[in-house]
Amino acid sequence: MTPKATVYVITTGGTIEKAYSEQTGTVQNVASKIDRYLCFLRLPECDVNVVPLMNKDSLEMTDQDRVLLLGMVRAILKEKAPIVITHGTDTMVRTGLYLQRALPDLQTPIVLTGAMTPLGFEGSDGLQNLTESLLAVQLIRVGVYVVMHNRVYPVHRVRKDQKLGRFVWTDEHAT
Amino acid sequence: MTPKATVYVITTGGTIEKAYSEQTGTVQNVASKIDRYLCFLRLPECDVNVVPLMNKDSLEMTDQDRVLLLGMVRAILKEKAPIVITHGTDTMVRTGLYLQRALPDLQTPIVLTGAMTPLGFEGSDGLQNLTESLLAVQLIRVGVYVVMHNRVYPVHRVRKDQKLGRFVWTDEHAT
Amino acid sequence: MTPKATVYVITTGGTIEKAYSEQTGTVQNVASKIDRYLCFLRLPECDVNVVPLMNKDSLEMTDQDRVLLLGMVRAILKEKAPIVITHGTDTMVRTGLYLQRALPDLQTPIVLTGAMTPLGFEGSDGLQNLTESLLAVQLIRVGVYVVMHNRVYPVHRVRKDQKLGRFVWTDEHAT
Amino acid sequence: MTPKATVYVITTGGTIEKAYSEQTGTVQNVASKIDRYLCFLRLPECDVNVVPLMNKDSLEMTDQDRVLLLGMVRAILKEKAPIVITHGTDTMVRTGLYLQRALPDLQTPIVLTGAMTPLGFEGSDGLQNLTESLLAVQLIRVGVYVVMHNRVYPVHRVRKDQKLGRFVWTDEHAT
Repeated sequence: MTPKATVYVITTGGTIEKAYSEQTGTVQNVASKIDRYLCFLRLPECDVNVVPLMNKDSLEMTDQDRVLLLGMVRAILKEKAPIVITHGTDTMVRTGLYLQRALPDLQTPIVLTGAMTPLGFEGSDGLQNLTESLLAVQLIRVGVYVVMHNRVYPVHRVRKDQKLGRFVWTDEHAT
Repeated sequence: MTPKATVYVITTGGTIEKAYSEQTGTVQNVASKIDRYLCFLRLPECDVNVVPLMNKDSLEMTDQDRVLLLGMVRAILKEKAPIVITHGTDTMVRTGLYLQRALPDLQTPIVLTGAMTPLGFEGSDGLQNLTESLLAVQLIRVGVYVVMHNRVYPVHRVRKDQKLGRFVWTDEHAT
Repeated sequence: MTPKATVYVITTGGTIEKAYSEQTGTVQNVASKIDRYLCFLRLPECDVNVVPLMNKDSLEMTDQDRVLLLGMVRAILKEKAPIVITHGTDTMVRTGLYLQRALPDLQTPIVLTGAMTPLGFEGSDGLQNLTESLLAVQLIRVGVYVVMHNRVYPVHRVRKDQKLGRFVWTDEHAT
Repeated sequence: MTPKATVYVITTGGTIEKAYSEQTGTVQNVASKIDRYLCFLRLPECDVNVVPLMNKDSLEMTDQDRVLLLGMVRAILKEKAPIVITHGTDTMVRTGLYLQRALPDLQTPIVLTGAMTPLGFEGSDGLQNLTESLLAVQLIRVGVYVVMHNRVYPVHRVRKDQKLGRFVWTDEHAT
């Protein structure tokens, strides 16, 4: 771990960034919330550059959106800085596998993270996952990972278990 | 104000008690949350009796539900204790006017309150409204009121303004 | 209660405004915190004017400080607006009795409030007391009161019980 | 990283566990708070065993206390599980160097962590540091470390900078 680090955070929406709308009584992806919650963390030796790319429920994320994300990742990789991507949990693994296949010569770690309950809602896991991701991405080897709930999963070894409401280890993905 | 007081809180659901469901990604009325949040308040000289009556979005509240609520109110009025009713904001005034008409000989104050954002969500007004209602109901005269956002509205003088997202004074209701 | 109200809040320090100092590891009165916490409340029909007068532990408040406070109260009384004074709990009653004696022709309610645990510390009663005071001061008759923990005490009927760690009714003060 | 992990957390007091005392108006080490805050974290694949050893300001920690801590560490090392030690920041490095010297054949990572502001106080860094430590201790090599504020410092490369109010890299300690 180097004394001073730079980490990029690309935000794409998902549950972690949802907000309660008083007009509709529903939770929606409206605007990026990550910046506001990063202020709760002390990061004196880490420059965090937040790149708000899109704000979508991950079930509505299209192939076109993933191409856009890949383009942004490629642009940032030139900086040789590790990358955290905040993302909806439902298609987080799918996006991660897509990035892994598209980046065979990756030189830096990429971490996907998100939340089961939005940032700022009681019982939210969002700040925990963000805290863990910002640290893990500086400690782990090159590769694409999901970091959630005190675990670092290589993206080809993880799936979301809908019943348990969390991520679990798996053998099923082809790398 | 007497040294030691008793206040009843009848809970009926509404936004104030909604919870985020990780399974569905929506906010729903599942179980009463009022009890859990009353623990954040210091009420050393006030016995608060919570009566969880139903747990409904107020747009789904039926005439039958209001009859049920009236029955519970009548039962509690025998105790001569003031009553706070937590309720969804969309039909809070309608329920209040119904109670006012049905209880022409009311001897104690009744306060309806709720929230624009659920208890425990960032920016929630729930605990503020609960705090205000538990105090106001001991200070005001006999009658039916809406207490929200630092205001005590006689129920026939208030309406919810959907655009402003809050309650405002009005002249329109017949008493 | 009028549709639109104005309330003054004079801040004097006390526990409610204490902050944790990382340099010394102690809690201290450094700067006014009330403004920052008022932002958590929805007060659409109440203009709150905060007047940061001093920032002292109430055990260190001198007769000179009370003269200063009285002068500020007199100046505000010309506005005919109700006044909330945030104050340390140890000498809150003493200050209240002093104001009551000095203002025999008072035309508006004055509420003293504070907290047992500073605003922003787990278990703090500060926001509850502030919420209650901003409402009570608009509902009660002319006079000087202590508002804490869901109670409105006329200042000549209240004392702080050090053992219980809260305010209790008393008969002992001469008016 | 293994699918299911066990981590020990030895608590010794320090700022991270201090609580505000309403009786004295001071912050003190009274009882362990770590357990209560671990409940805010989701750790579905990590068994955390909390061992509340002592509850002291680290400036009051004696050589005898460090011998006691070393004994507890030795006992836990038989379990071959990584260890997090919560500790006051003022002597955290001293304790860490002591452990490093006393355990030349260490087979598992040991992380010391703490906080500049107690858990549950506004602006606290306690939960961040705890979250980071519980993850880092499973990712790093054998050795003794300080984990604070998104950094993992080998204990012989870190010192607390009193002016900055945080830990910084250093070359000065002999290993």
